[in-house]
Amino acid sequence: MSSQDRIWTAGLLVIGDEILSGRTHDKNIAQIASWLQVQGIRLTEARVVSDNMDAIVAAVNALRASYDYLFTTGGIGPTHDDITVDAVAQALGVPVVVHPEARAILEDYYADKPGGLTEARLRMARVPEGASLIPNRMSAAPGIKWGNVHIMAGVPTITAQMLDALTGTLEGGKVLLSETLGSWVAESEVAQILRRIEKAHEAIQIGSYPFFREGRTGANFVIRSTDAEVLRTASQELAEALEAAGYPCTMGGI
Amino acid sequence: MSSQDRIWTAGLLVIGDEILSGRTHDKNIAQIASWLQVQGIRLTEARVVSDNMDAIVAAVNALRASYDYLFTTGGIGPTHDDITVDAVAQALGVPVVVHPEARAILEDYYADKPGGLTEARLRMARVPEGASLIPNRMSAAPGIKWGNVHIMAGVPTITAQMLDALTGTLEGGKVLLSETLGSWVAESEVAQILRRIEKAHEAIQIGSYPFFREGRTGANFVIRSTDAEVLRTASQELAEALEAAGYPCTMGGI
Repeated sequence: MSSQDRIWTAGLLVIGDEILSGRTHDKNIAQIASWLQVQGIRLTEARVVSDNMDAIVAAVNALRASYDYLFTTGGIGPTHDDITVDAVAQALGVPVVVHPEARAILEDYYADKPGGLTEARLRMARVPEGASLIPNRMSAAPGIKWGNVHIMAGVPTITAQMLDALTGTLEGGKVLLSETLGSWVAESEVAQILRRIEKAHEAIQIGSYPFFREGRTGANFVIRSTDAEVLRTASQELAEALEAAGYPCTMGGI
Repeated sequence: MSSQDRIWTAGLLVIGDEILSGRTHDKNIAQIASWLQVQGIRLTEARVVSDNMDAIVAAVNALRASYDYLFTTGGIGPTHDDITVDAVAQALGVPVVVHPEARAILEDYYADKPGGLTEARLRMARVPEGASLIPNRMSAAPGIKWGNVHIMAGVPTITAQMLDALTGTLEGGKVLLSETLGSWVAESEVAQILRRIEKAHEAIQIGSYPFFREGRTGANFVIRSTDAEVLRTASQELAEALEAAGYPCTMGGI
């Protein structure tokens, strides 16, 4: 089986009390999910845990064993609550070391900044032994790659830079394509139609996402397939079936 | 030990391909986390899984055993991809039954709507045997409570209604209080100060959340404690230490 024919999977571990307290809305799940789709990799599970060593270690080991790739976000800054590197190293069973290249990057970055490369800042050069670096053009402190584990920043704009650096470097399969049809209909009105169209095509999935907007009930129906031709046919059938039932729909969603 | 003195915990299971595809940004983690804090319950872990029976069953059983409460969101609508009730019932080892009260609510709600109570809509009256209902004033279809498991809607505005109905009904402990100090400083500049203040007080945690905004580097420092007096003292000490280091800060964050 070629790499194109199998499904490549990823797990994501979001680390941080700020997400679990409700203070900060996570943006990395959606950001990494979207990026993975373009790499031909499916985000299959995401977990959010607090800044707790045991919780991180357990989740890292569960997810890196279950999926082709593991991404973590958060907890790689210079402060006392940044324990991701230590936790991942413990999960991998390797010591934490200062990466010479990361140290050089930080020395350079902080050379002309007040305080220079302090002990706290040097924490950001620590990696699980054997790791390589993921460039961060925004704020110098790099992401970290060890085997199938990818340690990314918590700040979404920095994670975006790291994802950009990784683009095209991971082995993936066929890209999952999707088409969205939106209609001003209660999804319960058309549940039988959705079920029928999905059953008629082996290689598609249809998701139904209802909403209430401007005082009206609507839904977007997302058809997904790795086969562009099958996707096109199924989307057209669904659009026609909705139209015939009295619910014209908008390609691209509403 | 009274219920006030122990820490009450919750896990959250977000169910839905739309979150893992990156198409929809989850809002329920933050919403439920914030609500739980006010109930004196801490969201300790969240997981996101796809609309897959085995994945949901495994996560339900892991989380309901690990925490005092489990909340699920998503997958309780009328369409073929809504399999949460079936998956939770399988995890609990009980059959799925139609709840008479839920059926009556839906009959009433759909009495004057086109199509009436169709087979698809009746799916929303199905519950794991032995469950009670969580009222939904917005769109009739109720949430479901079975032991420590709470099955909520995926649409955040409906979940909000269900949370409102549950307010004050769950046993919890002391409410975790927080104070936020914001300063235009790179967190790496003040990492030692944060560490020192946190160590000086047993009953607090300090989180450091950096950001880049308007071309400047800043951070919010969130001090958390269940003890209002300790929180006040520690926050004041941190504010003074930051000020003394040349970084005046804004109470409430920036």
